[in-house]
This record gives sequence, structure tokens and C-alpha cells, in this order.
Amino acid sequence: MAAESRGGVVVRGVGMGGTPRPSDRASIRRTNLGLVLRLLRDAGPRSRARIAADTGLPRPTVTNLVAELVELRLVREGDSQREGAVGRPGVSVEIDGRSICGLGLEINADYISAVAQSLRGDRVFERRIPLDVRAAGPEAVLDMTAELIRGADAAVAAAGARLVGAGLGAPGHVDIITGHVRYAPNIGWRDVSALDGLRGRLGRAAPVLHLENDAKLGAVAEYVIASAAGIHDLISVTGDLGVGGGIISGGRLMRGARGFAGEIGHMQLAPGGRLCNCGRRGCWETMVGLGALLRHAADPGDPVHDASLDVASRLAELRGRAEAGDTRTLAALDHIADGLCLGIALLADVLNPRAVVLGGYFPVFADQLLDRVREGVARRVMAPDAGGCEILPSSLGLAAVARGGAQLALDSVYEDPSAAVV
Amino acid sequence: MAAESRGGVVVRGVGMGGTPRPSDRASIRRTNLGLVLRLLRDAGPRSRARIAADTGLPRPTVTNLVAELVELRLVREGDSQREGAVGRPGVSVEIDGRSICGLGLEINADYISAVAQSLRGDRVFERRIPLDVRAAGPEAVLDMTAELIRGADAAVAAAGARLVGAGLGAPGHVDIITGHVRYAPNIGWRDVSALDGLRGRLGRAAPVLHLENDAKLGAVAEYVIASAAGIHDLISVTGDLGVGGGIISGGRLMRGARGFAGEIGHMQLAPGGRLCNCGRRGCWETMVGLGALLRHAADPGDPVHDASLDVASRLAELRGRAEAGDTRTLAALDHIADGLCLGIALLADVLNPRAVVLGGYFPVFADQLLDRVREGVARRVMAPDAGGCEILPSSLGLAAVARGGAQLALDSVYEDPSAAVV
Repeated sequence: MAAESRGGVVVRGVGMGGTPRPSDRASIRRTNLGLVLRLLRDAGPRSRARIAADTGLPRPTVTNLVAELVELRLVREGDSQREGAVGRPGVSVEIDGRSICGLGLEINADYISAVAQSLRGDRVFERRIPLDVRAAGPEAVLDMTAELIRGADAAVAAAGARLVGAGLGAPGHVDIITGHVRYAPNIGWRDVSALDGLRGRLGRAAPVLHLENDAKLGAVAEYVIASAAGIHDLISVTGDLGVGGGIISGGRLMRGARGFAGEIGHMQLAPGGRLCNCGRRGCWETMVGLGALLRHAADPGDPVHDASLDVASRLAELRGRAEAGDTRTLAALDHIADGLCLGIALLADVLNPRAVVLGGYFPVFADQLLDRVREGVARRVMAPDAGGCEILPSSLGLAAVARGGAQLALDSVYEDPSAAVV
Repeated sequence: MAAESRGGVVVRGVGMGGTPRPSDRASIRRTNLGLVLRLLRDAGPRSRARIAADTGLPRPTVTNLVAELVELRLVREGDSQREGAVGRPGVSVEIDGRSICGLGLEINADYISAVAQSLRGDRVFERRIPLDVRAAGPEAVLDMTAELIRGADAAVAAAGARLVGAGLGAPGHVDIITGHVRYAPNIGWRDVSALDGLRGRLGRAAPVLHLENDAKLGAVAEYVIASAAGIHDLISVTGDLGVGGGIISGGRLMRGARGFAGEIGHMQLAPGGRLCNCGRRGCWETMVGLGALLRHAADPGDPVHDASLDVASRLAELRGRAEAGDTRTLAALDHIADGLCLGIALLADVLNPRAVVLGGYFPVFADQLLDRVREGVARRVMAPDAGGCEILPSSLGLAAVARGGAQLALDSVYEDPSAAVV
């Protein structure tokens, strides 16, 4: 309908309201830089003349814009090519995919991690440091995160590339404008100014920093994969002790009015049901979170309940039992599958996604869960054929959030290339 | 993140996948016509020179584009104005708001209706014909709808204006690409080719026709009002025998992968609850639909249950009882309010809207429902302050869907002005 950015100026629907942004010279230049960069990304290498024809921008303007993008090391000159039957061949311009990297960072309850990857998708740096984040406290965690950024920056430089920005994922409620983690109960953070804290530690070496909720970055990472298959509407559902969600609608991450969209773990699907950590009863995460699986699968004394053991090994143990045909484990997984059907069908009715991607602990039990979930969702959704919604297991494991952060950093360069200034 | 149309070419995120559309000469021209038209809408009247500066398009291109828009009667020349300190004054160009009209049409279970309104918002034509649509059958209903369109077209012409398109709202599942009403149980339609049916009846006089689900058009109409207050994320909830929904996210109507988004009436909020018309149990509409209100408020023999009486008079009767302090009516409304809280809080957790607009029968009982709903939603939503979500009563009454249809027709002209050819 209305609000989006287009062409030489940023326009918003006014038939549908909205406030036009001022179109001063600098903002027009920024917008046009993005226009050219996205054209090269989406339509491939081409000559300056062709860029002018494709964008409708004057040829001298295109020459200036390309020069600036080359200076920013976002594009480079390629081979000469003859595009038409006549005229002299033009020098082709292309995205400089190898030399531009985005950095993704995750602050998780159990670790901090970083992934740097280039525009071509090469992973230049990857590190995960196990850490009791709640016990360490924000200052120590930000110290270590700053150190990770320094290490990633050095690795990127050593690979002959350049870091254009970093996207940090944190759990809970985050303020993406100010860069504060507002309230993250499972790491015990409240009103931590994460981005300013990192900028203070890194000084002039700080990259352009973005903050986002971890589950939303997980959705962004899933979308990189899904979009290659033509999927532009998806919901990512991450099963952990909590259940997180991220919604991609028409190729865009849905944030809502204040950035709180995607709080799917607390959909109240069984009013009067089990008490949730949030203080309400019958939230979806009491039905399908990791706690529910463990509760159904084993008595309290069973080692799978031992939180001092690595969660991956406890999940492997349960998976082994399921594969051996243990009836209690299989019944527990059926419980989880039925709970997933209830929530996924509701989300599919409301949002009509093309795919729901199950991440976190769910993919570990893909063999036991998926068929039952697919069948149940198809039966429950109002639209025929579940509205075309596929249920897919995530393949990203623990790297999902950091990879989404790297993608966020790279994407924001396409929106505003001038922000990639060294 | 990625997929959207910008500037001189249509680009899609490819870092995030997506297929670029071919950028042939005709499509570039269409896109640029829209760019200029939206600039005039959003930023106000301005000279051709200023349009060139604002869009980055070459001056001769702008001259041609404006000439084409004038020929389409979408813009007109206004007063001369001096924009800078030097140079001769340019002739200002502006949207021709009075002479362009969109037509909205609704096929409801109980009536068909039409509203024609200009770009300035003047209503040029408005008509509602009571009709038992299910009994009449699709052919007779399309005959009458075609007649309504002819009448609206004549009224618009008599007002010195021009119809640029029509948006038809129908209940149930509609295919907006082919123009078929796929399945609308409450009017008994299945696979009715509504738009082709109208085109066949109207012949060369047929306007450009669009089809959309009625609840989605209601949301579009609510958004016209809400956006003037700076609200760009809203959910419209319409209470009737069924409960319909439309979602506006970031100023855009959310359709989902196959156009089924917004099916909020069948969110299963009380598994094992009351049997719904859809065959499932505990759907939201069994809790807050008109049937639930009547059931709670009065015994079967009470005249408010008499479907042969006009629904407006039955609602007025109930409202009178509530205002007189009738305890049973008030208790019934408390039931409805509690059910509304449950579903609205869930939607607010998932989508974080800036507003939820209650339409259909809900506004009739605004005095009895709103405070309780606002308090309950604020208590239930995870985000502080309900994530900033306001609960508002609709002021549009029965005209909401048709007004949304008129807006849809006007909006699509801004997307592709060349479609407005006479």
C-alpha cells in the first residue's frame, strides 16, 4: 500500500497518511548510491551506460555514483563487454563481493559468538566462546564481545577484506534505535546500553553497529536460505527453554510498532494451563519449550534433566532413546508435535506464511516430529493445503543468530552505502 | 529487508534471494510515472524542474512524464511559483484530486453496496441495496453489481470526474490474481469468477477491477483514518456472525503467501471448547462473534435472536438493555470483553501493532466493552504498555468495506498510473 522508499526520493503513502522525509541533496545521493548498488546485486554486472538506462539516472550522475562506490570498495571494475551490436564496449562494473564482510555477534545465555562473512557468503571468521553470561555480568560480557570484534576485524583484514558493519543479537526486549538491551530475563540484563558500551571499548576502531533481538536475526538467517528457494514469507520458530519467533513478510523482517513483534512463545493457547516463567498460564512455550519435552520424557532424577551437562549431549541422549523406540520418549515427542501443530496452525491462519522453519532443539528430533506436525497443521489450517505453508527444519544450528547479524550488517549497506565509510 | 520496488527499476533482495523483474523500456516508464505521481502526492505541488531535482530524473524525461500524467487527467498545471531566489518562476504541477475517483463495492450476506470517492476524499456516489445474497445466487448478484457500477460511473461523470478503477470486497477466500471468489460459505459461493463476470456484463465500459477479501478492505479503510494520526501498524477486527481480520504492517496490507493472511476468527483459543461453523472447537469467533453475544445475553425465544429482524434494531435493543443496567446483558458483554482480551493480547504479542480497531458490532457497545478490553490487554501483553497498542472503535459502520475498495482502486493508480488509461 504505502510506506516504502523508492527511487530518487523517499516517499510514503499519503493517500494512506505518512510523513514524507525531506529530500535534500545528501539524502538523494545516499538513495541513488543504494539504487545503483542494489541494481548490481540483483541484476548482475553491467556498464555505466547500462546502469544509466536501467535506473533512469543521467549518465554523468552514474559516473559519479560508481566512482564513490569504488572508493568505498563496494564495487569494482570488471571486464570490458560489448552489450549491443554497435558502439564501443563498456567497462563492466560489479559488486566487490570478496572484499566486503559483515560481522554477526550473538550474546546467548550459554555463550557469545561471532561470524564474519563476505558478500559472496564466504565465512572469513567464526568463533564461539562458552560462557555463563548471566553470572559474568554485562561489563565482562561486553569486554569479551569487544575482543571478539577486534579478532574478527583482524581476521577480515588478513583476508584482504573490509568489515562494513556488525549486527549483534541479544535475547529479550531490545531497543534497536538506542542500542539498549531493555529486558532480557534469561541473562539477567536490564537497560544495558550494549552498543554504546562496545563503541566505548573499541573507540575509533568500532564498526557500524546494529542491535536486534536474537530470534529475529535467526529469522533473517533462515530467510537467506529460504529466499534462494523463492520463499519470501516465513516464520522462524526457535525451541529452547523459551520459544522465540521471527517473522519475514514479503521479504521484510517484521518488527511491529515498537520492535516487539514475534513474541510467539507467550501466545496463550491453553488458558488455565501450566504456569509459565512469564507468570501467565498456558503459554505456548509451556507446551513446546525444552522444559516441556524434558518433563514429558523423563523423571526428575534422570540425567537429561541435569542442567550442568551440555544441552547438546542431553538432546543426543534423548534422540538415541527415540531411535531405539523408547515409548516414553516417543510419547513425549508426540506431545510436543501436537503442541507445535496448535501454535503453527494459528500462526498460519493469521499470517499465511510460505514456510515455518523450526530451529533450536526441534531439528534434533526432525525424524520424530516433522510428519506428525505437517499432517496436523494441514488438518487444522483454514485455508486449503495449509495455505501453501511448508514445515521445514532449520539447518543452521547454533550459528543462526550470528549469521543473521552478519546479514543485517550487509543489508544495511545496500540501504545506505554511504554508512560504509571507513 | 529485501523485496520491494524502487526508483527507475524494480529491484528485489538477492543477497536475500528473489528474482529481478525485467527492466524493459515500458516498465521503466510505468515505474517513473508512479514515482512522479507519488512525489506530488507526498511532497505537494512543485515545478517540473523541482521534480527533476527531487527524483534525479533528467529534465526532458520529467517533461514527458508530466505530459502523460496530464493526458491521463491524474495531474494538472497549477499556479506559477518562484521556488528559488533566482531564475524565472516555474509552472507548478499538482495532483488532480477532484477529477479522479475510485469506486468501492461490497458483496455482503445482507446487501450489496458501492461508494465512489475522489482523491480528495469527496464522496461522489454512495448506495446500499439490501439483498439476501445467498438466496439471489451469483448471477443475479453480479447483474445488480454491474448495474451499481454503471450508476456510479454516471454519477462520477456527472460530477465532472473520472473513474480510474474499482475495488470489490467479498467474504471468504478470494483469489486476487484471477478475480475468483474461491469459497465464501456465508453467501454460498464457490469458485465464482466475479471480476470476469462483471467485465462480461459491462463490456468496454468496465473500469479496471480489483478483488479483495472484505475484512482486508475494512482494514485498508481504517488505515486511511489511522495513518492521519501517524499509525502505520494496525489490526482491524470485525465482529459479525464471523470474526474477520485485516493486518496493516508498516503501511502495507499484509496478504501472506497466498492471500489468506488475517484469518483471525479461527484462532483456536479454547481447544475442546464450543463447536465452530468451521468444524473445529474453540475458535475465537465462538467466543466473541455475534452468536456468542446473543447466546450469553438472551434465551432462544427472545426477539434479539430473530434473524428475520434487522440486525441493527436487535443490537439497538441489546444496547438499550445494557444502558438500563440489565445484569444479564452486562454479564454477556463482560464475557465478550474477556474473549476479546485473550485474542487481542495474542495478536499484540505476535504482531506488535500500534492499534487494534474494533469494527462490526463491537462499536455499538463501545461504552460497555472498551475499558475492560483495554485494561485486560494491557495486563496480558508481554511488552510493557501493551507494546504501545491502542484499542480503538471503528467509526466507519457498514461503509468500511466499500470505502476500502475505493481506496484500493486509487492506490493502484499510484503504483501504475498507466493502468488508468481511459
